Amino acid sequence: MVAVTHFSDRLADAVGRKRSQLVVGLDPVVERLPDEVGGDIARFCFGIVDAVADHAVAVKPQSAFFEAHGSEGVRAFEQVCAYARAAGLLVIADVKRGDIGSTAQAYADAFIPLADAITVNPYLGRDSLEPFVDACRREGAGLFCLVKTSNPGGADVQDVELADGRLLWHHVADLVRELGESLVGECGLSSVGAVVGAPFPAEVVEARRLLPQAPLLLPGIGAQGGAPGEVAGAFSAGPASALVSASRSVIYASAGADWRDAAHAEAERLAREAWGVSLA
Amino acid sequence: MVAVTHFSDRLADAVGRKRSQLVVGLDPVVERLPDEVGGDIARFCFGIVDAVADHAVAVKPQSAFFEAHGSEGVRAFEQVCAYARAAGLLVIADVKRGDIGSTAQAYADAFIPLADAITVNPYLGRDSLEPFVDACRREGAGLFCLVKTSNPGGADVQDVELADGRLLWHHVADLVRELGESLVGECGLSSVGAVVGAPFPAEVVEARRLLPQAPLLLPGIGAQGGAPGEVAGAFSAGPASALVSASRSVIYASAGADWRDAAHAEAERLAREAWGVSLA
Repeated sequence: MVAVTHFSDRLADAVGRKRSQLVVGLDPVVERLPDEVGGDIARFCFGIVDAVADHAVAVKPQSAFFEAHGSEGVRAFEQVCAYARAAGLLVIADVKRGDIGSTAQAYADAFIPLADAITVNPYLGRDSLEPFVDACRREGAGLFCLVKTSNPGGADVQDVELADGRLLWHHVADLVRELGESLVGECGLSSVGAVVGAPFPAEVVEARRLLPQAPLLLPGIGAQGGAPGEVAGAFSAGPASALVSASRSVIYASAGADWRDAAHAEAERLAREAWGVSLA
Repeated sequence: MVAVTHFSDRLADAVGRKRSQLVVGLDPVVERLPDEVGGDIARFCFGIVDAVADHAVAVKPQSAFFEAHGSEGVRAFEQVCAYARAAGLLVIADVKRGDIGSTAQAYADAFIPLADAITVNPYLGRDSLEPFVDACRREGAGLFCLVKTSNPGGADVQDVELADGRLLWHHVADLVRELGESLVGECGLSSVGAVVGAPFPAEVVEARRLLPQAPLLLPGIGAQGGAPGEVAGAFSAGPASALVSASRSVIYASAGADWRDAAHAEAERLAREAWGVSLA
């Protein structure tokens, strides 16, 4: 039997080795691609992977921007995941899936082979998440469950006040903590993490308190207004306990012929900033 | 400018014409397919479409079971959607997507061209649903937002008690009602509907009260234990105001050589039962 390494241990190793908590989101939109790639979203993503591989610990391909191109786009998604892993990056498939048990299993079958971790949606409750948790246990995968998302409208559901005075997302955080309790690696972190929007620093601190062993994936750095310095509280469980995720500000750092260099420079800048914040 | 027909009006027309509220869920699992189709999920679904086209008003391909086969499976999904529409069936793409605005737009771009309606997840709030609502308005698409799902674990999040004494899913129902208010067709129903699990008859009645103009998609008929007679309250807003959705009990009605005939017979039985209930 092959020993399975916890996702969280692989993550902690990569963070320490690269001195980086940067995740680069791959959101390819044809209209924004540099002329050089001729509208080929896979080719663009390969270029970004090459440009950021030294400074990012992971890439996060956003499935929607590939699915918008139908089955050909999904083929590109598969190729980009494989390319990024070959370049030594962890892959977080941003798919936000959530469905009843037997269907959730099919989604696990779809994405766990392609990626090191995936994002999931908690609205269907515990039994919809368990097939993914089983995949963490069995195959060393990781999970990032939506808790408090980076968009303003997330508050419509996530910030609803409960009978006990808490907000709904606090309750979801408890669910995530319970699911991850049996999956804590040697690094002290669980393979079951949470998505918490970087534009909400106070909520990031509260999420850290509610989820002391969960890696926090913090999207919304850059184009959505967040900065590593504003989410310092997320790192209190160790340097690998939070990942800062930037998409458009890195991949579209330049629309000109210098797009690779510009993406490289912005990734380097963000990675240094986050690393510094995590040590402070 | 071409006049766009509301999804709800197309739905009401099809329900009246076929005297059916049956939606057949397409959940192809290779291990359960009849020998005849040689493990080809598209070929199996074509056979089911042919078998149920007279008695079902729509099919609901479950994306996960196609995505489990990677980009080839997604190609099959595209083919099955096109085949079902050519056979005169409405297509409800069961994708349960939900993401922040710019990403939700990419999902709308992915699925609105393939299907008449899609299922969506409300956890990310109003601004995550608006790109889909815009597609309803612009392109005559329909939407079914998860409100109270058919799985037992759905209660973990959806049945949490709020400060005002209601449950979370009541609040989500309000959100769905507000989103759909400007999209009511000539039939009196909105193009923005809700998913409510058939195994919870009391909740179906409550959902009908909270959402007087929303088509209710009621999964969980058959293998999950629900029956049309138990959800009679859903039809009080008219014969097209509720759709009963059965998957495994229809498509796997027989594992033998008579699989088409068995699916046909079970579809006919469920459609008659639901139609009778809706008139009572």
